[in-house]
Amino acid sequence: MKFVARKDDFLNGIRIIERATVIKGLQPVLANVLIETIDNNQIKLSATDYDLSITTLIEAQVEEEGKFTLPAKKLGEIISRLQDELVRLELNGATANITCKNSKFDIIGISASEFPKIDEAISEEDSIEIETKPFVKAIRQVVSAAAGYETNNLLSGVVCEVNKNILEVAATDGNRLARVREVIKNLSQDEEKSFEMLISSKVLSELSKVALLTEAENIGIIKEGKKIVIIVDKTKIITRLMQGQYPKYNQLIPQTFPKEAKVDKNLLIAALERVAVMVNEKNSIVKFELLDNTLKLSGDSPESGNSQDEIDVQYLSEPITIAFNYKFVLEFLKIVESDEIYIELNTPLSATVFKPCSDEDYIYLVMPVQLRN
Amino acid sequence: MKFVARKDDFLNGIRIIERATVIKGLQPVLANVLIETIDNNQIKLSATDYDLSITTLIEAQVEEEGKFTLPAKKLGEIISRLQDELVRLELNGATANITCKNSKFDIIGISASEFPKIDEAISEEDSIEIETKPFVKAIRQVVSAAAGYETNNLLSGVVCEVNKNILEVAATDGNRLARVREVIKNLSQDEEKSFEMLISSKVLSELSKVALLTEAENIGIIKEGKKIVIIVDKTKIITRLMQGQYPKYNQLIPQTFPKEAKVDKNLLIAALERVAVMVNEKNSIVKFELLDNTLKLSGDSPESGNSQDEIDVQYLSEPITIAFNYKFVLEFLKIVESDEIYIELNTPLSATVFKPCSDEDYIYLVMPVQLRN
Repeated sequence: MKFVARKDDFLNGIRIIERATVIKGLQPVLANVLIETIDNNQIKLSATDYDLSITTLIEAQVEEEGKFTLPAKKLGEIISRLQDELVRLELNGATANITCKNSKFDIIGISASEFPKIDEAISEEDSIEIETKPFVKAIRQVVSAAAGYETNNLLSGVVCEVNKNILEVAATDGNRLARVREVIKNLSQDEEKSFEMLISSKVLSELSKVALLTEAENIGIIKEGKKIVIIVDKTKIITRLMQGQYPKYNQLIPQTFPKEAKVDKNLLIAALERVAVMVNEKNSIVKFELLDNTLKLSGDSPESGNSQDEIDVQYLSEPITIAFNYKFVLEFLKIVESDEIYIELNTPLSATVFKPCSDEDYIYLVMPVQLRN
Repeated sequence: MKFVARKDDFLNGIRIIERATVIKGLQPVLANVLIETIDNNQIKLSATDYDLSITTLIEAQVEEEGKFTLPAKKLGEIISRLQDELVRLELNGATANITCKNSKFDIIGISASEFPKIDEAISEEDSIEIETKPFVKAIRQVVSAAAGYETNNLLSGVVCEVNKNILEVAATDGNRLARVREVIKNLSQDEEKSFEMLISSKVLSELSKVALLTEAENIGIIKEGKKIVIIVDKTKIITRLMQGQYPKYNQLIPQTFPKEAKVDKNLLIAALERVAVMVNEKNSIVKFELLDNTLKLSGDSPESGNSQDEIDVQYLSEPITIAFNYKFVLEFLKIVESDEIYIELNTPLSATVFKPCSDEDYIYLVMPVQLRN
């Protein structure tokens, strides 16, 4: 194998695939990137942790075909430090020689035959193509509401649905629920066909990062049995669909709320962060009291003391006292773009919805915590 | 105790003294700051870990005298999040009430009687006053050459000497030695008197940070028996002098060098960082080969492979091959201000001096490593 590639292309390729490497696993080859020549002008980089696989193509001037694996982290460190020039890679037995201007490296690798086969085959039976930007934004807005990553926990997944030109993305961990609905350009061939998938929140976070690195305008998603292949420009992300019945989350969202407060987002963030210095670290509870255009916040820590703060809001409904894990509320406040938000309430024990005052269709439902006294 | 202080003054005071607190020690009171009213217009903040004590005065409008201790970290978090206004603190039994605009906190503290006494007494028998800036710069330039902090290791200290208007600051850990000499304004009353001290590098690093926070133009240093008191504006840093005979380091610096290379600092940093990706992580050895206006660098890692690089330098002496722990060299290169540096050499096994090409009197001596083959 012998080829010449631009430093930036090579580095970008490694940055994309290295998310799927396993640094300190039992199989050393999983820490490596598989480098293969494809034709005279392209090489392919691949990495896999068995659960998630990523492949990408980069431009190169191929002088001799072949394939080999090299430690992805070391290779990334080396390429990133090279001067902005052409990088030449030449295989020489069990080492790859990399040269660039006055710099030379001999890197010990592992034979490509030890690298697991990545199943990229697709028939495009059930596929969709949509705009990248709104999809990535929706992922960012819901992903924090998913449960922590566990292979067999459906709640660690994110639901994505496309119906004609409506995208719906949602996640819930049982304590909160985030849902985004957006009008998008549906670029699929059969745009009447609806599309639905449940995919790990971890994979979707990686997808957002890859999308940023490629700057691709559109994303293709293909379901193939239990497998899902996401195509962003010249990059493929391959993972498995999560199987099972995801909760019917739309039924959990109350249709009407008798009480509504309009709140300045930045005032609430500042007050919440102040009050949160004095909360019980075990449950992170902050009490919200709404009364006569005022929101009073209070925290109480058994060891350190207590805190109170208040901000002006628009609220003229019945007074209410309700408590939340403040971290859930803060997560929403830090993601939402609108400077003003609505808090929509029912009783101190019912699901409360936080949402932007803008016309974005984005809701963040938080279950309150019962107060002892 | 009852007083009102400006948020910024209060926060700055806590930032200064919190460096001497012990967060998870056996004595909870050592995590606290002692707050005392001094007169109608000043309060004093103190913290100590027994080894290092810091006290500072801040302006305040005192309404009721008293003293109390509060957890320094929590207090800093609270004050930093308050709006930029006057902060009122009022003692109320075992809690302090802090109020600022709409924010209120009750913080549980510990009685001042449990706080250790800090011995600040000074007779000014042996003292000196010098400019802050050159002193802080000299500390920054030598402190990395001191050995890691250990109470009884003299080499973890830094030597500071003032003779008339010459400041000399030096540190060595046995493998390298940094020395700075600077002409300074000596503001002491008896400027003929020479002054010398050996002080922990850890304390000097803290001193640099405090000096930056206070922006004081001058620093006073007072030796009092085994104690040393450093006065920066309204802050006192109290620690003990290190006792013992520090090595006569000036004797270790060769007077003449038969070989000299003039090197571009930034080219060397870039090449060294590239080559360093492939060094043995146990000893961090990089080989330097000087020959005909060229510096070749090479690294070798038993597991990953090897690396070579070369840069143009000014070198016309006899060829030499010498090896260093590259981290020592890089530390100097990242601290020195001059864009060009000299490497002054003798034999592959003798002390090598790195120094700026500017007229700064700053040398960084590194002992080479013997190459096996």
